[in-house]
Amino acid sequence: MKNTSSELQNKLKIRLPVVQAPMAGGATTPKLVAKVSNMGGLGSLGAGYLSPSLIRDNIRLIRDLTDKPFSVNLFIPQLLDFKKNQAKIDKMNMKLNFYRAKLGIETQAAPPSNYEEIFSEQVAVLLEEKVPVFSFTFGLLSQDIIAQFKANNTIIMGTATTVAEAIAIEKQGCDIVVAQGSEAGGHRGTFLGSFRTSQIGTMALVPQVVDNVKIPVLASGGIMDGRSLIAALALGASGVQMGTAFLTCEESGFPPIYKKILLNSTEENTVVTNVFSGKPVRSIMNKFISDLEKNLDEIPDYPLQNLLTQAIRKQATAQGKIDLMSIWSGQGVRLCKSTSADQLVHDIEKQANETIESLKFFKFGN
Amino acid sequence: MKNTSSELQNKLKIRLPVVQAPMAGGATTPKLVAKVSNMGGLGSLGAGYLSPSLIRDNIRLIRDLTDKPFSVNLFIPQLLDFKKNQAKIDKMNMKLNFYRAKLGIETQAAPPSNYEEIFSEQVAVLLEEKVPVFSFTFGLLSQDIIAQFKANNTIIMGTATTVAEAIAIEKQGCDIVVAQGSEAGGHRGTFLGSFRTSQIGTMALVPQVVDNVKIPVLASGGIMDGRSLIAALALGASGVQMGTAFLTCEESGFPPIYKKILLNSTEENTVVTNVFSGKPVRSIMNKFISDLEKNLDEIPDYPLQNLLTQAIRKQATAQGKIDLMSIWSGQGVRLCKSTSADQLVHDIEKQANETIESLKFFKFGN
Repeated sequence: MKNTSSELQNKLKIRLPVVQAPMAGGATTPKLVAKVSNMGGLGSLGAGYLSPSLIRDNIRLIRDLTDKPFSVNLFIPQLLDFKKNQAKIDKMNMKLNFYRAKLGIETQAAPPSNYEEIFSEQVAVLLEEKVPVFSFTFGLLSQDIIAQFKANNTIIMGTATTVAEAIAIEKQGCDIVVAQGSEAGGHRGTFLGSFRTSQIGTMALVPQVVDNVKIPVLASGGIMDGRSLIAALALGASGVQMGTAFLTCEESGFPPIYKKILLNSTEENTVVTNVFSGKPVRSIMNKFISDLEKNLDEIPDYPLQNLLTQAIRKQATAQGKIDLMSIWSGQGVRLCKSTSADQLVHDIEKQANETIESLKFFKFGN
Repeated sequence: MKNTSSELQNKLKIRLPVVQAPMAGGATTPKLVAKVSNMGGLGSLGAGYLSPSLIRDNIRLIRDLTDKPFSVNLFIPQLLDFKKNQAKIDKMNMKLNFYRAKLGIETQAAPPSNYEEIFSEQVAVLLEEKVPVFSFTFGLLSQDIIAQFKANNTIIMGTATTVAEAIAIEKQGCDIVVAQGSEAGGHRGTFLGSFRTSQIGTMALVPQVVDNVKIPVLASGGIMDGRSLIAALALGASGVQMGTAFLTCEESGFPPIYKKILLNSTEENTVVTNVFSGKPVRSIMNKFISDLEKNLDEIPDYPLQNLLTQAIRKQATAQGKIDLMSIWSGQGVRLCKSTSADQLVHDIEKQANETIESLKFFKFGN
């Protein structure tokens, strides 16, 4: 094993090989991103669901708060067969009207009309703003886009859930690959494999990825503290990407009720389900999931289901109706703390150093 | 973090905190068990499906080959409602007759009559033979049995897949708990939690268990080499239990065709399914699984389905019909090697030491 962490740290110009995961949905406020970067890690803006102008605003807010590198993440757009989904959309809308009525929000008889291709505009903003690091999820980039980011000296990171996906990302010319284990909260990044067989636990996934690519690997999924940071380095990762641990920080934009739920959840409270967005996502189990999973065949493809359920989830949060909320969480959720991002990064670093110290006493031999 | 490994090593009287997992179904030959113990780890006999007399024979064969400690594992018997299952058994038998015909084996119209409660006789043999270590899976022991093993100075290890299960095992008075992550091959040890929400990745499971029990924790699931051994220690585990890595050793009793398949499989080839035994098991995906999963409601409870499919799987193996075999495997399967058990343990130890050395270069700070 070589010390690949320093290669990563050089590439990203960071001191600590800890990337705060780019969680879409509002958790990654400019304050959170900037604080993590200021502490020596890499903050990330989850911009997948943000409009181009909001992305620009957020980048500028981040730059007001830090002169350190940070990352912005986008979702690769999914090809959609609207015709194939029309019947599903209509049926799902009828079903969802039951929940909409409960929450007192408008029914949505027609399919969502506001779905449009904004990816290229999002990319244009990142290029104009010359972001230091660009990460992406749910697929691969075009060679044209890669060339433009490279011309900007932007570091490019892709997300893989299998060895084959990691190899594809490396082949594209990306600089870093995130190996997302099955413990991870939120959406599965799977884009080549089947969803069922691409849920590989981090302990198994990371060494198999490391053995098959040359670019630095970031371990993600179940990484919650200094112990799992060192565990990931032992597996050959060059660093980690941590999501769930940052969700309960005071700087996170996760709604207070979500934070409270995470702080009271255990490793047994999460499931992977596609009822919220049409794509598998690890979330806190609730009644909405068990209701909609009764007819999995009826769920429209991503991102259609995401658009159909959006207002329901938002309104449920505003009304405190836990049974209808979508609360992304990883399996390490017992380790969530109510703290600040600086304190969390400080604690990770301290515990990482302690863990290395204690490992020195292990030395096997006759 | 304290150096809990030495506590484990003292308890088990082993040099290396590596337990070869007690895989039932014939993989754990006396030769494999003894070799691992002779190398300084802990070999384990998977005796769950063995008759009391075969268990005694195996223990004596192991003792002929080593004077080092070893472990024997049993399955806690499951309460079965035969009446509830009768209709399912009949229907499943009709379905399975299709495969039996293909393989030229007898149809089985009646429910299996040879299922009997042999657990207490198995336990009696282990007590008479005063085995050094006794491990169990699928539940908890009676206080009476625990007292008898304790009177023998036998070390007792239970298997947990959640924090709650680990706490229950500690409360019983067991000496060690195995935390089985979702990467693990073979049967899920779950006995309190729901099967869906008890599939916690090792990276997330181990620290959460370690934080909630005082007894030493063995990490299992995805542990394949010296890197993951050190990763587990970093997470706070006192050692590891490794199954899949030993399956392809020459001393393993796994059929040659199974070894060949494992050596050619990737992390994407396994699924957790209950079609083979009625309980979730991680196995190499094949047609038998996809066929029977079409009607999951029809599968009789464990161990009934296990008895119903036994002859089919055995005959499929003899005839080389991969589509009808059951091949247990963990998600770390790309790391399987064709080697000997001594070489494997030697390699693990060497790589573990190298990993510790390389981690010394990581030291975070301003």
